[in-house]
Amino acid sequence: MKDKNTLFLVPVGLSDTSIDWYLPHNVLETIHSITHFIVENAKTARHFLKFINHPTPLQSIEIYELDKHDLPAQISDLKTFLSSYHRIGLMSEAGLPCIADPGTHVVKLAHEMNLQVKPLTGPSSILLALIASGFNGQSFKFLGYIPTKGLDKKTVLQQLENEAIHTTQLFIEAPYRNDQLMTDLCQILKPTTMLMLAIDLTGENENIISKPVSWWQQNKFVIGKVPCLFAIGK
Amino acid sequence: MKDKNTLFLVPVGLSDTSIDWYLPHNVLETIHSITHFIVENAKTARHFLKFINHPTPLQSIEIYELDKHDLPAQISDLKTFLSSYHRIGLMSEAGLPCIADPGTHVVKLAHEMNLQVKPLTGPSSILLALIASGFNGQSFKFLGYIPTKGLDKKTVLQQLENEAIHTTQLFIEAPYRNDQLMTDLCQILKPTTMLMLAIDLTGENENIISKPVSWWQQNKFVIGKVPCLFAIGK
Repeated sequence: MKDKNTLFLVPVGLSDTSIDWYLPHNVLETIHSITHFIVENAKTARHFLKFINHPTPLQSIEIYELDKHDLPAQISDLKTFLSSYHRIGLMSEAGLPCIADPGTHVVKLAHEMNLQVKPLTGPSSILLALIASGFNGQSFKFLGYIPTKGLDKKTVLQQLENEAIHTTQLFIEAPYRNDQLMTDLCQILKPTTMLMLAIDLTGENENIISKPVSWWQQNKFVIGKVPCLFAIGK
Repeated sequence: MKDKNTLFLVPVGLSDTSIDWYLPHNVLETIHSITHFIVENAKTARHFLKFINHPTPLQSIEIYELDKHDLPAQISDLKTFLSSYHRIGLMSEAGLPCIADPGTHVVKLAHEMNLQVKPLTGPSSILLALIASGFNGQSFKFLGYIPTKGLDKKTVLQQLENEAIHTTQLFIEAPYRNDQLMTDLCQILKPTTMLMLAIDLTGENENIISKPVSWWQQNKFVIGKVPCLFAIGK
């Protein structure tokens, strides 16, 4: 009996720190043994495969890039890809796939096609930030960018603050807007609300601070244009 | 200037599989360099330290066991412990701390005391199950054991089913009750509702199946007395 095809959920590094900090040995060997990948972004996927010294030349590795704007149109191509190869890797742009990226659709399809789905251990910025926040870890929501388009910023942030009482709210901002968002958060949120910043996770300048808004107001902390994850919680 | 004391959030294995599957090299070395731990369960913590061949004899490692039933009474002891040592590890019973265990209180305290908090990459059964489910990965809730005590089982499971439309619901059961819970889920949930089982994650018999309830009804799947994570989602 032929073994089932396997879809490996492949972790990608969060920073250019040594892989010895975030990839277990056998996970690295597994990635090295895969030559067919479905990815969120082909360019960053190739960068990562090069970074981990994948033994197969890049031009011999087949990479299928997801078009997040039109996933339904790709279902038939994806099905062909998934049924054609024995070992397939799924990668997001950073961290673990399927938390906030189109990878979820690929996993859904894999289950429909009775493939084996094999999640590999690796870093997740969202999970690392969550556990380091000291906030409720049993119930959380990752919002991506805060949706403010066409909405009143104050109303949106106050609603977030209310939901954070029961469910930790995690979000990001475009790095060049980090400090503008910080100014807004300090102006709009209650002084007692807890706010965490997780800067450059797993990187050399990692810095995780979890304090009440009043502390942030007093300390006039400058984030700069660096990767930063924000969380409000309890 | 003295460096800040650091609280490391230490990952623990989920199964007796080789650590090469779940611990990055530098994370292992970091754990090997720590001799003071705050833990959920002293016995399993010692088992893990032995399993990873910690170079310090176990009797020379100081282990502070959290009493989850009376955390407020321990705050003063915990503060003393956290301020006394330069490098402290925090461990739950399995996987990453602070998702569904008393570790969150320790991290909160560490932030209040301005310690550095350093989350280490490792396996989390909840996160591995979540990403392998194909369900919504941006919003999830981990319930631990489903709270049915004194409540109508049918009402509880149907409420879970409703919430799962927006937020993936993850839960566990005592292994000897796995199949009873499965019978209940198959009887009470709608046939179209998606149900995932993640059995023996990272272990030799890992098996992850994500199917509609109608499939589970027809296939009369037997879980047995093994570690299993359940999820309902979309």
